[in-house]
Parts: sequence; C-alpha cells; structure tokens
Amino acid sequence: MSAPDLHATVAVYRVKSDAASIEARAQGIAIEQSIEMPLEAVRDETVRRDIVARVGAIRDLGEGRFEVEIGLSHLTFSNDAGQLLNMLYGNSSLQDDVELLDFRLDPELLGGYPGRGQGIAGLRARAGAFNRALACVAIKPQGLPPAGLAKLVEAFALGGVDYIKDDHGIADGSFNERVSACAQAALRAADRTGRLTHYVPNLSGSFPVMRDQIARLRDAGLRAAMVAPVIAGLSNAQALAQENPDLAFFAHPTMGGAARIAPPALMKLFRLVGADAAIFPHFGGRFGYSLETCRAIAEALRGPWPHNFSDAIPTPAGGMTPARVQEMLDFYGRDTMLLVGGVLLRAPPERLTAEAAAFVRAVAEYGAAQ
Amino acid sequence: MSAPDLHATVAVYRVKSDAASIEARAQGIAIEQSIEMPLEAVRDETVRRDIVARVGAIRDLGEGRFEVEIGLSHLTFSNDAGQLLNMLYGNSSLQDDVELLDFRLDPELLGGYPGRGQGIAGLRARAGAFNRALACVAIKPQGLPPAGLAKLVEAFALGGVDYIKDDHGIADGSFNERVSACAQAALRAADRTGRLTHYVPNLSGSFPVMRDQIARLRDAGLRAAMVAPVIAGLSNAQALAQENPDLAFFAHPTMGGAARIAPPALMKLFRLVGADAAIFPHFGGRFGYSLETCRAIAEALRGPWPHNFSDAIPTPAGGMTPARVQEMLDFYGRDTMLLVGGVLLRAPPERLTAEAAAFVRAVAEYGAAQ
Repeated sequence: MSAPDLHATVAVYRVKSDAASIEARAQGIAIEQSIEMPLEAVRDETVRRDIVARVGAIRDLGEGRFEVEIGLSHLTFSNDAGQLLNMLYGNSSLQDDVELLDFRLDPELLGGYPGRGQGIAGLRARAGAFNRALACVAIKPQGLPPAGLAKLVEAFALGGVDYIKDDHGIADGSFNERVSACAQAALRAADRTGRLTHYVPNLSGSFPVMRDQIARLRDAGLRAAMVAPVIAGLSNAQALAQENPDLAFFAHPTMGGAARIAPPALMKLFRLVGADAAIFPHFGGRFGYSLETCRAIAEALRGPWPHNFSDAIPTPAGGMTPARVQEMLDFYGRDTMLLVGGVLLRAPPERLTAEAAAFVRAVAEYGAAQ
Repeated sequence: MSAPDLHATVAVYRVKSDAASIEARAQGIAIEQSIEMPLEAVRDETVRRDIVARVGAIRDLGEGRFEVEIGLSHLTFSNDAGQLLNMLYGNSSLQDDVELLDFRLDPELLGGYPGRGQGIAGLRARAGAFNRALACVAIKPQGLPPAGLAKLVEAFALGGVDYIKDDHGIADGSFNERVSACAQAALRAADRTGRLTHYVPNLSGSFPVMRDQIARLRDAGLRAAMVAPVIAGLSNAQALAQENPDLAFFAHPTMGGAARIAPPALMKLFRLVGADAAIFPHFGGRFGYSLETCRAIAEALRGPWPHNFSDAIPTPAGGMTPARVQEMLDFYGRDTMLLVGGVLLRAPPERLTAEAAAFVRAVAEYGAAQ
C-alpha cells in the first residue's frame, strides 16, 4: 500500500517526557512537523499515506528523556535545505521539550544538493598541500580599515598559511575595498614566497548583496568565500553554492544555537548546502563542546556519503592556539584545517609573520612525522 | 572623547554565573559579540573606542542568573538585520549559559529598515475592518493538491474571514498553480459576498525563488505574502519588504528557537524587517508560552516606536479555537488578528463556511459590544 521510500528521511529528537506520555508526544511531534492539524481532520487518503510524518523507534534514555525517530516524507521538503530544516525542526524549535539530535537524509535526495563542489580534495589542491593538515588564520578585529586588514593578510601570507578568513563579524560597507586590498596583499606575499595564500572574505547581507559580493571577489581573483548559513538562510547558502560550483565555501556556525540543535546535525546541514570547510568550536576553547561532540562533528563532515557527495574539512576553532597543534592533529588527523585567530594577533606587528610561520611549521612537521 | 551614541543599541542577556565571575563573563560576551579577539591585542585606538562592545548594567536575578546589558556599536551592523542578529547573539548562541532576552535598537537606526509598510492600519484598510479584531484562518494540510486547497479558500472566504494563510509547511513545487487557484477561489467568493478575503501564500526556497514567487502572486492579483524570517534569513526578509513596500508581509516564527531567544525579542526582529502581521503561539495551545510572554509579544509588535515606525498586528495562533475568541480579545484587544487553523478543518467540508462564519461573527460581535 504505502510507498516506504517516501519516509526514508529520519529526524532524531531528544524529548523530555514520562514513559506513559511518550508515544502520544512522539505522535504530536510527527503531526507538528508535517500536517500541523488534527489527524482525524485529514480526509485525503494520499495525504495520510504520503505526507503525514511517521513515528519510528522510541528509546528510553533514562531520567525522563527519550530518543524519538520520526520519518519525514520527502514530498514535504524535496531539494530545498531551508524547507528541510523547517520540516526537521521548525515549529518544534518553539517547544522547549524537544531537541533536534540528528537527521538521516534519504540518500536518494542527495543529488538535489550542491554536493559536487570542492570538498577536502579541492581545498588541498588549491593550497598545494596534500600530505598534512591545512593551516588557516582569521583577520580581525571588525572595524579595522581595509588597509589594516590587508597588512595582516600580507604578514600571515608571508608566514605561509594556506587560508586567511575574515572574522565573521566583518560586514561593513567596505567589502570592495577590503577584498581588493586583501587580495593584492596575498599576491604581494606570493611574489616573495612563490606560493599563494587564499584570502576568504566573509559574505553578509541579503542574497542580492551576497551575489554582488561574489562578483567582486571574483573580480579580485579570489576563489573562496565564507558564509554563515544560519543567518543567510540555508536555502540561500545552498543557492550560492549551486550558482558557484568553482568557488570554495567556508561555513561559519554563528547563530547555530547549539544547545537546541546538536552540533553534528548542524554540520551535516552545512555540508548539505555545499560547505567545503566548516568552522566549529573545538573542545577547550571559548565554547563548551566536548571531545565526543567534536568527534561526531568530524564524522558528520568527513564520513562517507552516498553518490560521492563532497566532504567538508573539519575546521576546529574558537580560541585555539599554535601550542595545541599536536594535540588537535592527534585528535582529528590530517584531513583537518586548523584555524587560529585572535591569539596570533597578540604578537606585535613585526612578529606576525614569524608567529604564522611557526604555526604553519607545526602543522607541516606533524604531517611529515606521520 | 568617545562618541556615546555609537553604542546606543543594547543587547540584554540572561547569563548563568556566580557573582564572583559575572563581570568577567559579561566582558567576555562583549568581546565575543564584537571584536572576538583578546582586547589587549587590539592596537587600533579607534577600534577600542568605537567598535568594542561595552558592558552596561548587570543585575542579579537570583539563583545564579544575571541580566547583563551590552552596548553594541552600530558600526558593526548598520542597517542589515542579519548582521544585527549576528552581533546580538551569533557566537553566543553557541554557548549554553547565555540567552538573548531583549534588545533595544538605537532609534536613529530605524530609518534603515522597512518601517514604512502596511502595519496594522494597512491590514485593516485592505480588509475593510476598522472597529474589530481581524480574523485569519490557515489552509492545510501540506500535500493537498492546489484544487483541494482552493476549495478550502472558497469555503472560508464565503464565511467572511479577512485573511487566509497557507500553512507554513506548504512549500511544494506547485506554487504557481496553488496561488492561481486560491486567488481565483477568493474572487469567486467575493462575487457572492461582495467582500474580498485576502489569500496569503507562503514563500519558500532561496531568495531568487521567493522573488519569483512574489512576481507570480502579483500576477494573480494578490497583495500579501507570508515569510519565515528565521529560515529565509533576516536580511532577506528585510530585502523582500524593502523591494515590495505595497505588499503586506506575515511573519511565521518557525525555527525561532524560543528557548534561547526570548519570543518578544524575536518579534521585535520580525517587526524590524517589515512584518505587518506576526504569528506566534498563544498561551494554552500546543506551545508553552505564558500569558506574560504573550503580553510582552503584543507590546513588542504594537508598542510605539520612534519615527512612526510601522507596527505589526499580533497574530496569536498555535492550536486556537473559535471558542476562545472572547477570552483572547479580552486579553489582546481589537488591534489583533486571531488565527485559527486545524480545528476549523475538523468540520465536514459542507460545514466549513458555517464554521468560518461563526468564527468571524464571534470576532465581529466582540468588536460591536465594546
């Protein structure tokens, strides 16, 4: 009767409930995340069969928490990542007893997402770095004029880092000036080092503004950009990646609200919309992620997906220091991009290049020693 | 020395902390939500003075919670709502000890937002309903073909409701057919009743897709649309409102994650990006909002803002019934749009118009009795 593959996408929730109520609560979530009306009021047999979400496994986690799996019909979200998020967690995000723990997208749907992008191999090829982890730094603070940011780019590029990203707060009106100045600074450094460091500007604003920013960064010869998918809207991050298959996209987790959406699930969404590098806070920095969470994030970003769907390089950050390179690479392995930010900037200006070079050397030597 | 008005925008957080640590924690949030690097590493005096966020009042709420006010420099977000949200709560949303309770935007910045839209007066004028609350219903379920949804529109329009909105989950590929069929159904009903009910289609997908949907709904003679600002991205909701000052926008709260962003603060953001009607779950329905929260939401949407900034009509929903009209209007007063959804659809098809008419009558008679 029913077409079982319609509901092959599964949302996994953690729900506060008592044992007597959990089945009804799970059914309530299934309704909320699909038809959002009383089931008995649905007269259309096709809707009942093909649209209404279905309660799957329920597992008692103890202490009044249950893990609940709900099968979502792909007819309700199709190939749009924003609508996927809407169906995974939209209304339920307003209820304080439900967290989105994970989701498993029907592999057959992957073809509709921008999964033929750069991935880890593309980031490596662009950087010419194949046998070691990648090294990334951030330029900041916001408010520094383009010339000041460009100076940082030049100093760090002379130190040999692979990628230099904007701070995610940098979003003022000087995009064109900044991108032009920073791209030229990277080229000046490349003239001396013989190797190009890639500057990754932060996109911000509405979609039309971001589209224009991409045109400008292309004009400046750049081939990578950072986007915050939660703020841009997942559908828009997806559309940008689909329109620009030759660009590498870094995803920033800002507004990820990790306390309600499990971080690895968020990272899967970022990968789904075409991120090639996904930034997240590593254990022991300014954010509270556990090592277990970090391991799950790395798996979400790098684990094999069907149809050769692109991977994304785990990019741990959030208060990291060059002193932690060894420990972090022990943990993540080589298919990782280490991102250090503010700590490098503690050094006096004349030491920036040497500090960056020491960071790059630590990353490279770890690779050589394996 | 400093320009005090640069930091006139204030974010208000609730922070878990002990008394000994709260000042340092507040300073940490101020850094996280602005320059995101060690303060001592900032060498540029202008950045220190004009960019770094400033800790303001700290109030002990008891039980290890503090209310913390942080002044944000408007140079860090300017007139872009997405960037405003990034600076209000972006990285801090990843830390589980911080909730965004409220924000107060520098009134001087309001001019950059789409605040000259329809507002409550515009929604009333369009509906020709001036001395009573407005009545809105939702059509659902998702998955019903356009002809089925159009039948519901016709039945409800014959019952005399003011606005008929799509369920926020309706986002399939049949936008053009649906909008055309539902607009025609509303016109057929208007031929019989002499009064037009406004159909409000749900927009979904990337910004370019939404732009195209707006062109199509205009073609069909419609002048209102619903958008989910958190999923579309606040900057994009803002851009749509700015591009279409003659359309009325309904904001849906899906993905609002109310447990971490206080619902009234979210509603202020929706008003800021040009919502004319803002939907939220009322007390006693499927969601856990208290009456106090609902009162604060109504104030956030209708309270006076400087520069005649448009208001937005509170649109309580989330499992409401016609039986609650009296109680809800006692609570919200006339400048309210009541939205009932699934419960109307429990009625057999031949009763839909009568049920809708009873709902409208209850709303109208309450108005007349005041």
